[in-house]
Amino acid sequence: MTDLTRFSINQMTVKQLSMPELAEACRGLGVTQVGLWREPVQEYGVEATAELVRDAGLTVTTLCRGGFFTAIDAEERAAALADNRRAIDEAATLGTDTLVLVSGGLPPGSRDLRAARERVADALAELAPYAEDHGVRLAIEPLHPVYAADRCVVSTLAQALDLAERFPAHQVGVTVDTYHVWWDDQAPAQIARAGAGGRIHTFQLADWITPLPEGVLNGRGQIGDGAVDMREWRGYVEAAGYTGPIEVELFNEELWARDGREVLAETVERFLAHAAG
Amino acid sequence: MTDLTRFSINQMTVKQLSMPELAEACRGLGVTQVGLWREPVQEYGVEATAELVRDAGLTVTTLCRGGFFTAIDAEERAAALADNRRAIDEAATLGTDTLVLVSGGLPPGSRDLRAARERVADALAELAPYAEDHGVRLAIEPLHPVYAADRCVVSTLAQALDLAERFPAHQVGVTVDTYHVWWDDQAPAQIARAGAGGRIHTFQLADWITPLPEGVLNGRGQIGDGAVDMREWRGYVEAAGYTGPIEVELFNEELWARDGREVLAETVERFLAHAAG
Repeated sequence: MTDLTRFSINQMTVKQLSMPELAEACRGLGVTQVGLWREPVQEYGVEATAELVRDAGLTVTTLCRGGFFTAIDAEERAAALADNRRAIDEAATLGTDTLVLVSGGLPPGSRDLRAARERVADALAELAPYAEDHGVRLAIEPLHPVYAADRCVVSTLAQALDLAERFPAHQVGVTVDTYHVWWDDQAPAQIARAGAGGRIHTFQLADWITPLPEGVLNGRGQIGDGAVDMREWRGYVEAAGYTGPIEVELFNEELWARDGREVLAETVERFLAHAAG
Repeated sequence: MTDLTRFSINQMTVKQLSMPELAEACRGLGVTQVGLWREPVQEYGVEATAELVRDAGLTVTTLCRGGFFTAIDAEERAAALADNRRAIDEAATLGTDTLVLVSGGLPPGSRDLRAARERVADALAELAPYAEDHGVRLAIEPLHPVYAADRCVVSTLAQALDLAERFPAHQVGVTVDTYHVWWDDQAPAQIARAGAGGRIHTFQLADWITPLPEGVLNGRGQIGDGAVDMREWRGYVEAAGYTGPIEVELFNEELWARDGREVLAETVERFLAHAAG
């Protein structure tokens, strides 16, 4: 086994593993970094998770995810902000400095992407100082344009940076995920822009495979199985000065149906074959 | 019924109708323009279709579609070029001046979108003079980035125009289809660029609805059912000087399962309610 110092496994890739099983599987493979998700963390307990990962010698690279800021209704907006403050608290407890944000889709009946993006900016303005006070950076994740209507009105790195740059870099940056940006010929230049501003807060890998499943959510490919040249994208973020963790985050029904330890071992192998330095 | 002078029905929207049924249904509703597809035209016969639409007083606004230019193999490339020359011949026979082009996806095993787009440019260079000789303009259609891997490596109007502008506007322009560009905050500026160059060769409408079906191909929404503000996009192309037909092109299993005449009548109603001037 060669160098895994940059590798981090996002918990969603092997969500069939319980929190202790994940820690155990990481130890067995020499994986020292994990990206966590709020739901399984809450289920296991935030404090208990923090203790478990600390005892296992694991570093938490990100917490996924906050966001969903596009509601128009005042009560829904207040609830979203309160929930995001809790997400920031959880990130701080887990010892990660990065909370990944998915912005949310168009509210029912709305066709106004621009107005929805402005509501994302409004929410960031409320949350960024709170995040800073807790030692947490917000990382806006542009999702692939296929999700623009129902999940994330921020579709490109350029849009994410337009939002992030309204705030200091230690408060708000971006998530670069190959699955979401690989098609975009403007993304390499935007990665350079993000890096120059110190705003690449996390870098995630997933491959693009077809055909996409119904609902297009859980069809992310194992590294090496699809259309994305992982070393090319790693090259872009590193040329932009990024030296942080590289998280593999796959949503894939077929991977979830398999033994989680086996999937984690395969993911490590694929990372080394296709994305290692 | 108010003004349908700009309206054109793309044949795929009501593909359950035979060619004579389509002509008959158009007459009944006062529809005078159709966009045709190569497969049903070939099935009915190119000359026979030309005669049928002429006798029915129908104008053919576009022929869909040529393209699929991304193969690396020399024999496959030659076959694609030959097939596109036939498509140009068919367009000329049908009396339309516009052949819509879908560029093609990544060849098996390739991860190089840039190289694939250059092969599209090479094919255009071979075909554009032939098209001009036959009175046909090529209209590069950027498809939504969800199709970048398996169907069309040209994902944005900016990319389509970068290709088109290597040729005179009367040879090569673009297709603006709301379904493919609605998410793109750069599209309005690119429509202005296209219009200034006289390169908006056709304008098509479809709505974006979710959840997408498996394979993401046949889930285009009826006008008014989804996330796209049709009048906003009509406004962009008209501000850019476009005065041509507005074609409604829906791929939708549920619409195809219904009576085609009923779907055509509904499409006319929806056009008038959501997209008429």
